[in-house]
Amino acid sequence: MASGPLAKEHPLSPETQLETPAAWAGPAPQTVGALKRLLMVPGPTPLPPEVIEAAARPIMYARTPQFVEIWEDVVARLRRVFQTEGEVLVFASSGSGAMASAAVNLTQPGDRVVVASCGHFGNRWKAIGEDLGLDVVYVESEWGRPIDPATLARAVADEPSVEVVFVTQSETSTGAVSDLPALRAAAGDRMLVADAVSGLGVVDLPMDRWGIDVVVSGSQKGLMTPPGLGFVAANERAIERSASLGARDFYLDWERARKGQNSSPPRTAFTPPVTLVVQLQAALSVVEGEGLPAVFERHRVLGRMCRAGVAAAGLELLGPENPEANVVTAFRVPDGVDGKAIPALMRARFAISMAGGQGKLSGKIGRLGHCGYYSYHDIIAALGALELVLRELGRPVELGSAVTAAQGVMAEAQEGVLR
Amino acid sequence: MASGPLAKEHPLSPETQLETPAAWAGPAPQTVGALKRLLMVPGPTPLPPEVIEAAARPIMYARTPQFVEIWEDVVARLRRVFQTEGEVLVFASSGSGAMASAAVNLTQPGDRVVVASCGHFGNRWKAIGEDLGLDVVYVESEWGRPIDPATLARAVADEPSVEVVFVTQSETSTGAVSDLPALRAAAGDRMLVADAVSGLGVVDLPMDRWGIDVVVSGSQKGLMTPPGLGFVAANERAIERSASLGARDFYLDWERARKGQNSSPPRTAFTPPVTLVVQLQAALSVVEGEGLPAVFERHRVLGRMCRAGVAAAGLELLGPENPEANVVTAFRVPDGVDGKAIPALMRARFAISMAGGQGKLSGKIGRLGHCGYYSYHDIIAALGALELVLRELGRPVELGSAVTAAQGVMAEAQEGVLR
Repeated sequence: MASGPLAKEHPLSPETQLETPAAWAGPAPQTVGALKRLLMVPGPTPLPPEVIEAAARPIMYARTPQFVEIWEDVVARLRRVFQTEGEVLVFASSGSGAMASAAVNLTQPGDRVVVASCGHFGNRWKAIGEDLGLDVVYVESEWGRPIDPATLARAVADEPSVEVVFVTQSETSTGAVSDLPALRAAAGDRMLVADAVSGLGVVDLPMDRWGIDVVVSGSQKGLMTPPGLGFVAANERAIERSASLGARDFYLDWERARKGQNSSPPRTAFTPPVTLVVQLQAALSVVEGEGLPAVFERHRVLGRMCRAGVAAAGLELLGPENPEANVVTAFRVPDGVDGKAIPALMRARFAISMAGGQGKLSGKIGRLGHCGYYSYHDIIAALGALELVLRELGRPVELGSAVTAAQGVMAEAQEGVLR
Repeated sequence: MASGPLAKEHPLSPETQLETPAAWAGPAPQTVGALKRLLMVPGPTPLPPEVIEAAARPIMYARTPQFVEIWEDVVARLRRVFQTEGEVLVFASSGSGAMASAAVNLTQPGDRVVVASCGHFGNRWKAIGEDLGLDVVYVESEWGRPIDPATLARAVADEPSVEVVFVTQSETSTGAVSDLPALRAAAGDRMLVADAVSGLGVVDLPMDRWGIDVVVSGSQKGLMTPPGLGFVAANERAIERSASLGARDFYLDWERARKGQNSSPPRTAFTPPVTLVVQLQAALSVVEGEGLPAVFERHRVLGRMCRAGVAAAGLELLGPENPEANVVTAFRVPDGVDGKAIPALMRARFAISMAGGQGKLSGKIGRLGHCGYYSYHDIIAALGALELVLRELGRPVELGSAVTAAQGVMAEAQEGVLR
């Protein structure tokens, strides 16, 4: 048995205890009424039934016309999700693999680059750059806020030799979503590489129109597919730079990937994760069925619901209100509350998984993820549970306050739709 | 486009419309924020992931030691769920098939029997009996209330020739759960057959201790398995009666089923639905993992939450408060509201499926099912949606009222568990 606030016993009625064989009594529960698990971390995210089904299909040989057709369809659909006429390269990798590929293909050792960060994953650009022997100029905005465009503009102005700038669109560790058009302007004519691992398919990102040179992402967040696929969307300028620099990584080399994808028929450089590709095709059909603008609008409503609810429960949101920060909702752990207690009780009492803080925010914040296959129902259920957990931790929360605030957002949004 | 209250357009911003290819705009939505479907009808009910997974296993040949082992395990576990030392026979049938098998195996044409009913499915016993040429004495309690034991006692007292009495434990059409020990007493020494299609694994039913001779059920409600398996649990007296009367139905004959199940090794009389049996094994593992008393307690909490919420939303519950009526929550459609509008809007706005009325309650009631794989989360989400739907229909509902009432029940129940 665990100790502390979770170590309580289930008071079965004596009659029921007598009636039931010991083997059927089950473990002493820490809750009642919460049988289903609800995954509300910012990735991996839940899969739609269509995507689960697709995993049960027979494994395909990658060198068949049938698989090639699926591959071409997936790449064409990804280009629509990235809103680009440029290349989309698909790697068997995590999102970090896609980030690393951008860094290694666009630089040479010793190159001076700028990384503008506002959190744990912005920091990862720095770690990747240092690992590759780059000379990283690192500027950081306050964690919880978006990347400050003026800070980036100053860093770039001070560094005429810098040719590549790395930024984060959706900072998963804090929920902040940065203003990419403003960062584009701040970076001047330098090549701009954006991490959209958690933001793609959640927050609008028309990369061609905004002039973002490279956007990297992964399969396991907004795209509702298991982890294992990394994506790089790159415009002509980025592809040309990579080609001119030559390969310095065997596995993540863009030219090798491009040559494979663009041959006729396409022939991926290495064995593609065929099941993940088939699942991604199913997921992109779900996206297409809902419609990309409706996907963004849904996340906008869910984000507003979650922020309104968290605030109504008396928690302080991390960072300023940002109508586009609809990927993750982060809040400060109140004074006097153990940073691990809220996620632990959400799990124990309600079978809801949420995240704590990362890096220097570890133990200081809680995070509810709602990017991908999320719905009104999840937000309402999670906020209702959060209220009860906060009360158990001695916080003065009025029952229903968070839920009602979220319902109000939903009612307003529906009035908009139904008007 | 549909007409009426659902035919509204989605106000995409002009900018977003320009950015998105027409093929990606998707259908004009009737909601925002509700992507996931939530099935809250009283069967078929949602499947736990373990049960879905089991359907993807390779088909087994039924005459192998591997399948026989699964079969024996499933029958042994079913006996624990029925809380009986008697026989449990498994048919490839719906729940109605199991009902029909009880009637045909326990009677001869012309037999006078009593059916005590309180709704649409009690009525089904009458239809089955008439179809079999029985002389049915039908007594009905008010729909929405449990079966009145005094009414049954009078009917039985007036009919000394009656040897078999048919009743309903959980009346799915109204949510009423009848008091089986009281009905057992009312039926005197007659054979008592109870329909527990929607109540098994939801509401406690220790059939041996209560002296219920036969209980019939199905796979698709509390047992969280797809439809297609019908169960008959019968005590020695019922089995002996059936054997002495001889077969009058080829497919549903108990003796044929018993002979197959009880041979060594067991050999089902007909091809068993192997996938459903494998899925049922997975589902019974989920039940065992939670523990049968905890399963009943969870449904008790969810039932109380749902009734409290529905009442707080200003709806009139069908029938009197019954702490064991935890299978389905039924409420009267308010005056001036179209009986089909509430389910239609729950589906259109929130992707929640709920049921309307059946038989003479068609158009007059709404029903939310919560038997089986249901959790706190579902009730909170459904009540939140119901509030918004009622507001859209012009009812004076305060936002959060239903949800807060349900949370209060949950908080109280948790205090009980955690005390």
